[in-house]
Amino acid sequence: MRAAIFRHGDIVVDTVTDPKPAAGQVLAKTLCCGICGTDLHAARHTAQFVERARRSGGRLSMDPTRDVVFGHEFCCEIVEHGPGTEGRLKPGTLVCSMPMTIADKTVQGIGYSNDVAGGFAQYMPLAERLLLEVPNGLPADKAALTEPIAVGWHAVQNARLAADDVPLVIGCGPVGLAVIAGLAIRNVHPIIAADFSPARRALALRMGADVVVDPGKTSPYQSWQEAATPPDYDGSRYAQLFGSGPKQRPAVIFECVGVPGVIQQIIAGAPPSARIVVVGVCMETDRFEPFFGIVKQINLQFVLGYTGEEFAASLRNIAEGKVDVAPLITGHVGLDGVKGAFGELANPERHAKVMVEPWA
Amino acid sequence: MRAAIFRHGDIVVDTVTDPKPAAGQVLAKTLCCGICGTDLHAARHTAQFVERARRSGGRLSMDPTRDVVFGHEFCCEIVEHGPGTEGRLKPGTLVCSMPMTIADKTVQGIGYSNDVAGGFAQYMPLAERLLLEVPNGLPADKAALTEPIAVGWHAVQNARLAADDVPLVIGCGPVGLAVIAGLAIRNVHPIIAADFSPARRALALRMGADVVVDPGKTSPYQSWQEAATPPDYDGSRYAQLFGSGPKQRPAVIFECVGVPGVIQQIIAGAPPSARIVVVGVCMETDRFEPFFGIVKQINLQFVLGYTGEEFAASLRNIAEGKVDVAPLITGHVGLDGVKGAFGELANPERHAKVMVEPWA
Repeated sequence: MRAAIFRHGDIVVDTVTDPKPAAGQVLAKTLCCGICGTDLHAARHTAQFVERARRSGGRLSMDPTRDVVFGHEFCCEIVEHGPGTEGRLKPGTLVCSMPMTIADKTVQGIGYSNDVAGGFAQYMPLAERLLLEVPNGLPADKAALTEPIAVGWHAVQNARLAADDVPLVIGCGPVGLAVIAGLAIRNVHPIIAADFSPARRALALRMGADVVVDPGKTSPYQSWQEAATPPDYDGSRYAQLFGSGPKQRPAVIFECVGVPGVIQQIIAGAPPSARIVVVGVCMETDRFEPFFGIVKQINLQFVLGYTGEEFAASLRNIAEGKVDVAPLITGHVGLDGVKGAFGELANPERHAKVMVEPWA
Repeated sequence: MRAAIFRHGDIVVDTVTDPKPAAGQVLAKTLCCGICGTDLHAARHTAQFVERARRSGGRLSMDPTRDVVFGHEFCCEIVEHGPGTEGRLKPGTLVCSMPMTIADKTVQGIGYSNDVAGGFAQYMPLAERLLLEVPNGLPADKAALTEPIAVGWHAVQNARLAADDVPLVIGCGPVGLAVIAGLAIRNVHPIIAADFSPARRALALRMGADVVVDPGKTSPYQSWQEAATPPDYDGSRYAQLFGSGPKQRPAVIFECVGVPGVIQQIIAGAPPSARIVVVGVCMETDRFEPFFGIVKQINLQFVLGYTGEEFAASLRNIAEGKVDVAPLITGHVGLDGVKGAFGELANPERHAKVMVEPWA
């Protein structure tokens, strides 16, 4: 089969061996697969990516001296069932799966593996028990967005939202936009969202943000404060402790940028007792001032991935129209276009999600 | 009155003007006041302390070019009532108060103020409405420990403890010991506690720890793991997400050291989904690796101080014998001994809490 391969630091299109389904697996034809910011990071800062992943005890263990086929946001069509499968879904069925497979009871990640080619190849060996049928005739490119939408949904599910929370989303790339979509489903308003890019702010509004801020011109924390301070609100724990203080609704702030310095910026800008959900994936060493967190009694919740239930709910939410993912899709490329897309995705005015179609 | 004054970077004993109670205040004779680690930090790293306090938006605003009388862990005796008081408690009554006072509706901190002398002076102007009567004939030195015990109780109250949590306390100075006392009251066991000092580990056992660890010899995280992994435990969220993973009870880790690097050490050592409660007050810029937190979905809760209810509960817990604070008290000094005690407190083998008696 053909694949866009990450080989010696470059993306090249070449032929690789077709996967052969093991016990419990199906052979699936990859119809569409999104390019993720983490793919860009892994390609540009490979040594750091591999080293951090290894030291932090995660399951990623790619060897960059060998071929890797990226791609973990995919929608496939079932081609044939391997040994020991139930045949629950017929060949031709469109399916999504969390980006992992199971071969003989061993779980393998999909997307950063030397052993299993990811979604930038024409076929994948998927675990039958992880397959989710794509409902309602949803097209493959929209179904492929289940994965990034699930990342946002997981972050929102782990934010311990309360009825009077006012959310602030810092960064409106695909992760921030997925968080906004999740907040809109949970009906937590007003949603304040900040990004330097006009195109991203426009997308934020389309995904459900109520107020968008250009941090180059206005402080997102000031905008949050204005939205979160109704005249009749009856005070915070901080006010109780210190005798006086800001009287405002509670803050839940989503860090969706993932570069050094942003967590400290948020801690410094956040109101007392804010909860910060760290969704952006910063792979570098970062600096912060704990005293700022202490004085404000900040809570920092780091999140990653999603559960099986959250992934399945995200596919349903897209298929039922609770999330309209159409605005996120800003381009489609074949395998020959993957390398160029990796470069173009640096421009937030031009792209949010580029979808790879390995058969185009 | 006499006071041990922080003046131009030194501690000197001198006479200062007696406080005159304003409306709603009582004149209180300071019987006993503990020396806090934050006092030591403020004396040794004054410029940093003042600058961080100002930038982080806290209420501390001491001017180190002017006299400051430290001391915020105190027990007093009511001497006389000022104007506009109710006279609820008679002169001669032993009282505690959160370290703040109220003069004409203005809240003033006690302990790092140029305007109100703290507990290392012979008198204080306390707010009548903040006074708590010391019950059960509790002696003044034990009652004065209400404040540090409340710090630990507040941390425990904000740890979102669940029934099967296994706590790990990193650092067994007064803050860590107060956390252990709070955990013992909440009956969360086993309590694992780590400190390099043999004397501090012995104190940890007396305050309620079940297992103590010398981090110079054994990894606290390994000891925690052994205590938290019963053979029949049925797995974690992490196991569910990644197909396999450690099967152990949830971790709640209390950072009670407060020096740079410890938060990252804990994030690196912690098991997946650990909750870390940051009680130690680190006033320097710190470094950490967000990716470690992300991969493990760590929660970091910074805490500070206590509520009025937590402070009152701590006095009751001491008076009712639920916390035995006697082991914490390792010395008593008069005002002339304050300067020497600031030096001696650096030795964890010798001291936990030194109590200042301004009338001795």
